[in-house]
Amino acid sequence: METSANERMVRYEDGKAKRDQEALVAVEYPLTIYVNREELVTIVCTPEYLEDLVIGFLTSEGVIRGVQDVDQIEIVESTGHAYVTANFVNKFNAKYRAKRYITSCCGKSRENFYFQSDASLLESFNETSISLKPETIFHLMAEFEEASKTFHRTGGVHNAGLCSTEEVLLTRMDIGRHNALDKIYGHCLEAGMSVNDKIVIFSGRISSEILVKTAKIGCGIILSRSAPTELAIQMAEELGITAVGFIREETMNIYSRPERILIEK
Amino acid sequence: METSANERMVRYEDGKAKRDQEALVAVEYPLTIYVNREELVTIVCTPEYLEDLVIGFLTSEGVIRGVQDVDQIEIVESTGHAYVTANFVNKFNAKYRAKRYITSCCGKSRENFYFQSDASLLESFNETSISLKPETIFHLMAEFEEASKTFHRTGGVHNAGLCSTEEVLLTRMDIGRHNALDKIYGHCLEAGMSVNDKIVIFSGRISSEILVKTAKIGCGIILSRSAPTELAIQMAEELGITAVGFIREETMNIYSRPERILIEK
Repeated sequence: METSANERMVRYEDGKAKRDQEALVAVEYPLTIYVNREELVTIVCTPEYLEDLVIGFLTSEGVIRGVQDVDQIEIVESTGHAYVTANFVNKFNAKYRAKRYITSCCGKSRENFYFQSDASLLESFNETSISLKPETIFHLMAEFEEASKTFHRTGGVHNAGLCSTEEVLLTRMDIGRHNALDKIYGHCLEAGMSVNDKIVIFSGRISSEILVKTAKIGCGIILSRSAPTELAIQMAEELGITAVGFIREETMNIYSRPERILIEK
Repeated sequence: METSANERMVRYEDGKAKRDQEALVAVEYPLTIYVNREELVTIVCTPEYLEDLVIGFLTSEGVIRGVQDVDQIEIVESTGHAYVTANFVNKFNAKYRAKRYITSCCGKSRENFYFQSDASLLESFNETSISLKPETIFHLMAEFEEASKTFHRTGGVHNAGLCSTEEVLLTRMDIGRHNALDKIYGHCLEAGMSVNDKIVIFSGRISSEILVKTAKIGCGIILSRSAPTELAIQMAEELGITAVGFIREETMNIYSRPERILIEK
């Protein structure tokens, strides 16, 4: 499916109106997920990597435990429906999450959203031995931004990527912040990729939800060009995740677990 | 409540690590809304103007029809709970919306989310007679950005504002895109402000949800520094709303209903 579309517009510049100009804009695509014939949720997303998105979303939300719980996925692009046949469904999480309204981040109270839904899935990253030099971080960010460039033509999409300690391995974009990471997660699950030696890289703010998604994917380091929130830093400390923000032109802020960043002095 | 917090961090610059530096970061605050003792939803937000946010959110979602349906609101800041006593609740919308999962935009399928939940609230703006000159638009955007400057210190918050045809009347910020607009809406409802001669101004992408919120507030023009999505443009056309994006240094794109922008030639 197309992820962007041409729209007619009036362009105003140099004090004049140019009519019948074309603007490339992002497509918003609503995808309704059915699990074992029951309607679960609708995600509004950028329409690519939809199977990864569904797998990543359901696992991240704890509705299923991973790709092994799924017998079949059928995506009907024309109607925006995803039919998942699962051999296991966490009924509690399926119901629990349907009750939540999520705007910029996961819902429920801090304790609830953190522990009720997530405790079973989150593990501590205190023992994660991966580390990065500052040069590598600047190199990864440059590579990530280069890979994201073409996506930026429509304005306002979010990009997420997965890196080794040497290079950016994959990038995904979406108009929804969390969707970009769910697409990454779904890909890792479907490919059976090891993630504990990988790093998450993200274009936007590190909110608590982005932090939790990083933990669920299984990565102990997250890099971003933007700032984290207070709650995200607090969770990063608790989970033992290294959160690095404001990575710009050879400078950066390390908000938690700085020992994984190998600075000479 | 504080909307930002100081966090310790390691700052890396000029090839050196400066330890024990302070970073100002945005606070994420989960607010759980109870309506007539029933838990409805949790919104993660920037903790200010919470009463406006609750009124704006509930009305925008169609759970209540406006401030007249509310007998009392009690916000318990320490626990993040809002207790609303309402003399009228739209049971259908209360249930309907609880089933939705919302990431970058409203959920359900296009038809559903647009018509089921919203048809009762949305009216056409075809007859709206308000209009703006390009100079006024650039002036409003400059004023809006000036007013938003102090909010940008923490990075990554969204700003929304309400303007007359002469000036910016109020601005609200939030870590959640929709919350900023719900705070504006709540304020208008509580103050009994007329809105059909007003304009919405927004810092971020005009998604379909932002467009619908603009319609619900009752404004026929939305201005943004960013791009709209395809779906938002389509809805703007249908609802008769003028959507103007990419407003930057004397240039702009008019995506729908350009006749309200008074360009000399």
